[in-house]
Amino acid sequence: MTSAYDSLLQQLKRLPGLGYRSAERVAMHLLVENPDSMPELLDAMKRAREVICRCQTCGNMAEGEICVICEDGNRDASAICVVEHVPDLIAIERSSAWKGRYHVLHGKLSPIHGLGPEQLNIKNLQARIQTGEVVELVLALSNDIEGQATCHFIQEELVENRSIKVSRIGFGLPSGGGVTYADSVTLRSALEGRRTYE
Amino acid sequence: MTSAYDSLLQQLKRLPGLGYRSAERVAMHLLVENPDSMPELLDAMKRAREVICRCQTCGNMAEGEICVICEDGNRDASAICVVEHVPDLIAIERSSAWKGRYHVLHGKLSPIHGLGPEQLNIKNLQARIQTGEVVELVLALSNDIEGQATCHFIQEELVENRSIKVSRIGFGLPSGGGVTYADSVTLRSALEGRRTYE
Repeated sequence: MTSAYDSLLQQLKRLPGLGYRSAERVAMHLLVENPDSMPELLDAMKRAREVICRCQTCGNMAEGEICVICEDGNRDASAICVVEHVPDLIAIERSSAWKGRYHVLHGKLSPIHGLGPEQLNIKNLQARIQTGEVVELVLALSNDIEGQATCHFIQEELVENRSIKVSRIGFGLPSGGGVTYADSVTLRSALEGRRTYE
Repeated sequence: MTSAYDSLLQQLKRLPGLGYRSAERVAMHLLVENPDSMPELLDAMKRAREVICRCQTCGNMAEGEICVICEDGNRDASAICVVEHVPDLIAIERSSAWKGRYHVLHGKLSPIHGLGPEQLNIKNLQARIQTGEVVELVLALSNDIEGQATCHFIQEELVENRSIKVSRIGFGLPSGGGVTYADSVTLRSALEGRRTYE
């Protein structure tokens, strides 16, 4: 249509979840149907880019040095849930199932992708463990070989012989999921993770 | 999470087709997973907002005074397809079914919404008709009362007694659509618009 429109469309199509048609719909919304909404979106994007940085304690998103969760005195500082990425943290927060704090690794160990302990936010986790304040560590990493290797590394290298309760989140059937349609790896995890009635 | 993040999420959620989860996914993409893509998107949005305006002939999007379709000498200038909005024009262009030019009204007559001929891009259409160059007018307006009223207005007020072939696009079953699942209004249109084998 016009080169500026085509460039906008190209950029919008790169966003996750937007295909050709939905990118076109957003472009039309911004340019023709609702042009007043564009400056507000631009401002919000620029501001978010300027002020949001990594929490220096846990690696979560923060405005300033410390994120809202690390600042919150009501959250148990002795219990840390380790996650790969910020969206994982947000998903767990949404479930309201964790009242402790977090540590975001920003990835998992993957030698094939050149990701060793140096590339991850692991030094900070080590520092937090070395303060002696941490009593419980929940590893909420993904259910794959790299997730498993990362868990193993944390347990062997960081926790060592400290008296910290380390656990890994459960694997198995998702809520509402039936056995028939579950894949073999999930079923294997579910069987391995079976719990005895007590 | 942070106020800048929340504002960005609010703005993204206002875009068509983005709900809470997809807005969150886009925000994460822009801030955490792919931060380098943000400046490019910002630039594309700002540039599109700055340079895109209305074609002074037909009302389509343009960079400069005249849009690419009105500038294209290969498009039949004597045949005009009248549409309500720019996305309608894009949809017809995508179908490759029209080789003439366009006129975008930017709405349809709707007294209840305060939209009269003055609020629409109708004066320019009148001017184009008065040059005497227009031989055919295809009204591609929506299949509702306001679309019908707008077609009626154009035919009565603009075309009058000129020797212009005026038609309205066909209505009926969409491609792949079965009779069983079509709504009554569509079926009525389809029956009224039936074509005799010749």
